[in-house]
Amino acid sequence: MKLSARNQLKGKVVELRKGQTTAHVRIEIGAGAVITASITNEAVDDLGLKVGDEAWAVIKASDVMVGK
Amino acid sequence: MKLSARNQLKGKVVELRKGQTTAHVRIEIGAGAVITASITNEAVDDLGLKVGDEAWAVIKASDVMVGK
Amino acid sequence: MKLSARNQLKGKVVELRKGQTTAHVRIEIGAGAVITASITNEAVDDLGLKVGDEAWAVIKASDVMVGK
Amino acid sequence: MKLSARNQLKGKVVELRKGQTTAHVRIEIGAGAVITASITNEAVDDLGLKVGDEAWAVIKASDVMVGK
Amino acid sequence: MKLSARNQLKGKVVELRKGQTTAHVRIEIGAGAVITASITNEAVDDLGLKVGDEAWAVIKASDVMVGK
Amino acid sequence: MKLSARNQLKGKVVELRKGQTTAHVRIEIGAGAVITASITNEAVDDLGLKVGDEAWAVIKASDVMVGK
Repeated sequence: MKLSARNQLKGKVVELRKGQTTAHVRIEIGAGAVITASITNEAVDDLGLKVGDEAWAVIKASDVMVGK
Repeated sequence: MKLSARNQLKGKVVELRKGQTTAHVRIEIGAGAVITASITNEAVDDLGLKVGDEAWAVIKASDVMVGK
Repeated sequence: MKLSARNQLKGKVVELRKGQTTAHVRIEIGAGAVITASITNEAVDDLGLKVGDEAWAVIKASDVMVGK
Repeated sequence: MKLSARNQLKGKVVELRKGQTTAHVRIEIGAGAVITASITNEAVDDLGLKVGDEAWAVIKASDVMVGK
Repeated sequence: MKLSARNQLKGKVVELRKGQTTAHVRIEIGAGAVITASITNEAVDDLGLKVGDEAWAVIKASDVMVGK
Repeated sequence: MKLSARNQLKGKVVELRKGQTTAHVRIEIGAGAVITASITNEAVDDLGLKVGDEAWAVIKASDVMVGK
């Protein structure tokens, strides 16, 4: 599936922490930049996500703010 | 102001396109990675945003999906 | 790519309207239910999206409210 | 109250799981399609939400991505 | 319909500006505080929204960041 | 850092509740109006957030719905 999301950043899972329903996943996208995603535990299980996996951080343009 | 957003990526504005109410801003955050933000024209004017500016892409962890 | 998003609803594009920077896409997901997505014009072009196409509406669980 | 959200899908609550602060609610909107919402436990209590309830999944158009 | 959204702020529409597909609505919620919403033109028409109307700004808790 | 977000409401933290990964923060923005934010525990720690602190609720215009 190809996605409309303007931001699809490829990287590697460097940390994965599950809560009771929500998990936090950190993806290093290169040059030391790390993106944190908050997703459901269910999604982690469905994707079989684990540290070291190649993964994408996917973000809609309307969810990005700009700071200056 | 310090922000709760887990993702604050520093870069440079490489493109800026205004529509009638909504603008698209592209920020290069290094290593060729570019983040697209869709913000109001008003915000562009308030920040005095222009191509070449140093800027941050700010994204809440709950707005990041993971693909694998 | 497999996605963490809990909601991936398959349907058919029944309407597509472009603005100056933002487009509205309506996807019929069956039984008369129609989902409206607001995405960038750029995304419409990248996907080569047109009326009649099979498509998915993808929504993060944290973006769904509940009414009763 | 009438809402601006383009997507208001009527269905029935088929699953409800509370975490420590966040709950996951699954609403069947017909034809086997199920929408998962991640809302606060507080909201579940305020709505008196339980399995079997008639409920709406409410989603802003700008929170819908398109896949093809 | 009662909503799960934690933030439902009552106020008055003080400004309304339509673009080609997206409109910006400003709601004064008292004490000089004004909330800006970006919604579809279609939603403005459906609600028959106009300056002076009593209206609610509705925001999911997961869409609020904190600054300090 | 100056932000593109149209909504930056200043107030005082009146409640703070941590879950396993996600925390709920309530900010009184005056005149009895209270905004609830759902942020990561990590963000609470990074900001050193506690009840009584002066804080801002920051919300993108595209995350605000309108009810009437």
